[in-house]
Amino acid sequence: MKNIAILGSTGSIGCQTLDVVRSHADEFAVYAISARSSVDLLISQAREFLPKVVCIADESKLTQLRDGLEGLPVTCYGGDKAIEEMVEHTEIDIVVAAMVGYAGLRPTIAAIRAGKTIAFANKETLVVAGELVCALAREHNVSLLPVDSEHSAIFQSLMGEDSGQVEKLLLTASGGPFRLMPARQLASVTAGVALKHPNLLMGAKITIDSATMMNKGFEVIEAKWLFSMPVSKIEVLVHPQSIIHSAVQFIDGSVKAQLGMPDMRLPIQFALTYPRREKSDFPRIDFFSLTDGLTFYKPDTEKFQCLKLAYEATRMGGNMPCVLNAANEVAVAAFLKGQIGFLQIPCLIEYAMEHISFNATPDLEAYMETDKQTRALTEERRENLKFEI
Amino acid sequence: MKNIAILGSTGSIGCQTLDVVRSHADEFAVYAISARSSVDLLISQAREFLPKVVCIADESKLTQLRDGLEGLPVTCYGGDKAIEEMVEHTEIDIVVAAMVGYAGLRPTIAAIRAGKTIAFANKETLVVAGELVCALAREHNVSLLPVDSEHSAIFQSLMGEDSGQVEKLLLTASGGPFRLMPARQLASVTAGVALKHPNLLMGAKITIDSATMMNKGFEVIEAKWLFSMPVSKIEVLVHPQSIIHSAVQFIDGSVKAQLGMPDMRLPIQFALTYPRREKSDFPRIDFFSLTDGLTFYKPDTEKFQCLKLAYEATRMGGNMPCVLNAANEVAVAAFLKGQIGFLQIPCLIEYAMEHISFNATPDLEAYMETDKQTRALTEERRENLKFEI
Repeated sequence: MKNIAILGSTGSIGCQTLDVVRSHADEFAVYAISARSSVDLLISQAREFLPKVVCIADESKLTQLRDGLEGLPVTCYGGDKAIEEMVEHTEIDIVVAAMVGYAGLRPTIAAIRAGKTIAFANKETLVVAGELVCALAREHNVSLLPVDSEHSAIFQSLMGEDSGQVEKLLLTASGGPFRLMPARQLASVTAGVALKHPNLLMGAKITIDSATMMNKGFEVIEAKWLFSMPVSKIEVLVHPQSIIHSAVQFIDGSVKAQLGMPDMRLPIQFALTYPRREKSDFPRIDFFSLTDGLTFYKPDTEKFQCLKLAYEATRMGGNMPCVLNAANEVAVAAFLKGQIGFLQIPCLIEYAMEHISFNATPDLEAYMETDKQTRALTEERRENLKFEI
Repeated sequence: MKNIAILGSTGSIGCQTLDVVRSHADEFAVYAISARSSVDLLISQAREFLPKVVCIADESKLTQLRDGLEGLPVTCYGGDKAIEEMVEHTEIDIVVAAMVGYAGLRPTIAAIRAGKTIAFANKETLVVAGELVCALAREHNVSLLPVDSEHSAIFQSLMGEDSGQVEKLLLTASGGPFRLMPARQLASVTAGVALKHPNLLMGAKITIDSATMMNKGFEVIEAKWLFSMPVSKIEVLVHPQSIIHSAVQFIDGSVKAQLGMPDMRLPIQFALTYPRREKSDFPRIDFFSLTDGLTFYKPDTEKFQCLKLAYEATRMGGNMPCVLNAANEVAVAAFLKGQIGFLQIPCLIEYAMEHISFNATPDLEAYMETDKQTRALTEERRENLKFEI
């Protein structure tokens, strides 16, 4: 029986992780769950899974959480600090880091320091502070198991292989909902349109990141750290069918790939059961129904500037990916509120990358400072922008 | 430095194996080579690679072989028995079994008994006597490394995995040159037409087997033995681009595949260097040039009866795959000589399967007897057939 803590249990990955646990009740117990502010869903999850500990980051909702779980053997806490403490419980075997955005960084670091296996779904943590997090994981001999379908695919393709014999990583991308839209129409895209992603059930932030292809840029950075691979050896392939989840090319020219239906439960389950696999009733690929075949295109980085900015930030290194991430969080939030247009997202990020001072060797405090400065600068710039659609 | 023996060095796989050795001269030495009757090529290979031992099965050409290598430090032998003795040399590390057809059985068994690692390119050996050969390999703790691109793909996809967690093997097939030809036109196909295979540089026998899809049937049987998998868990996918070389579906629904350009040197090199990979200059997949995409179709077993007969023979087991193989060798030889039409190949095989007595538990002698009887019966039937085109 593995004891699981889920950070961000009310988000898309969190809910799907609970789905997996539900169908393997004999193997996994939910020891702890946390959410930012979705208190109602958090209560209902706690009532079903009866974790020992439940945390809500938004302390104003702690009373509501306690009331909702009264009489149950569940201890409730509020605040970010409580989440960091929660992951240190010795009974926890594996921490699913499924918080959205930069908020995942500190609890993930706490979990690594506590020696927990991490199932990694919070890509921003690696984007912002990949070097630091990976060094810490090595130091504490902690496994970072990817949950993203792309990184899980690479991880699976590397099983039994010598990672020193990798020639390149082939990261596939659906291309997002605007792959075929002419560039000049992108300016008029609204949040409502962008929130319809063709393949995966995802949250709003990641859906917009997918539409701008920043999500793929983040995954390039994540892959760099997870697999210790220079960014020059990470190639993005647009693959609209999302069947090949990613691949690895080896020095002899052989390519290994992992394929599956677009269903996040598969990589989640694999991270939880690794190194074993467990039977599942997830849908299987029906190769004969793939009438368009499996196709591949070069990503259009002129049209999707966010992907280009992500490659640039990674090549620069230091605090630049942190700038990229913070500016993106601010810009996407503004886009979702209808405050800026779709094409202003990369403009704001580029502006931040040009104006925040470069720091080649940031420590955790420097990351925090860069994050704060970037958010302030991007907000300020956003307020002065004329809304263009 | 690994010492290699190549059985069938003058065939397509043999020549490509020597290509691989040529580009890794620091890692591999050719210790022994053999051929059936292509004495001129065998001489020129021996002059280049200077093996210690050279064998020619056709004893009438032994004098020519000796004359051609006079003055060189190479010992020459003739006859099938000499080939069996050759593989027992203690200096040999790995035996590449690249003979065509049933002739590969005895030397392969001799090599296994001598404890040599086998790089397996002679599928007929496993088709005819897979149970016996695999039992022997287990007994002598010998690795059977597949050289066929499909089985190498499955082998690579299984690295680091628990083979008990396989749900099915997905064996890809180009579909052969007649995939799109209407069934009624198949009757008039001649050897000249059939010998133009779209993808791989192959010998005449295997080219015809590919056109009838018997080759794929043999590969199903081979996969059954190599991976200890019931035939009900082996599915054939027609995949005309031949980029996905085969795949494995696991119990969690995850599929792992190995991809590459159609180039036999890759699986040959992998078998020789396993478990490592070595740098190569083989062409890489250019995903962006795959304009038709990667497509998949159900095999048409009504049109390609040989594939159906192979599944039937495997399901029956015992000596039936041996009957399948012997009848196929006779029928293909007759087709190549223009003695029978294309659609008479499966007719002859079906006739043999219906008329040779079934033996559920044959030993090596029984296989020999079945083989002899089947050849005689099929020849006799062939002589009585009216040539139909």
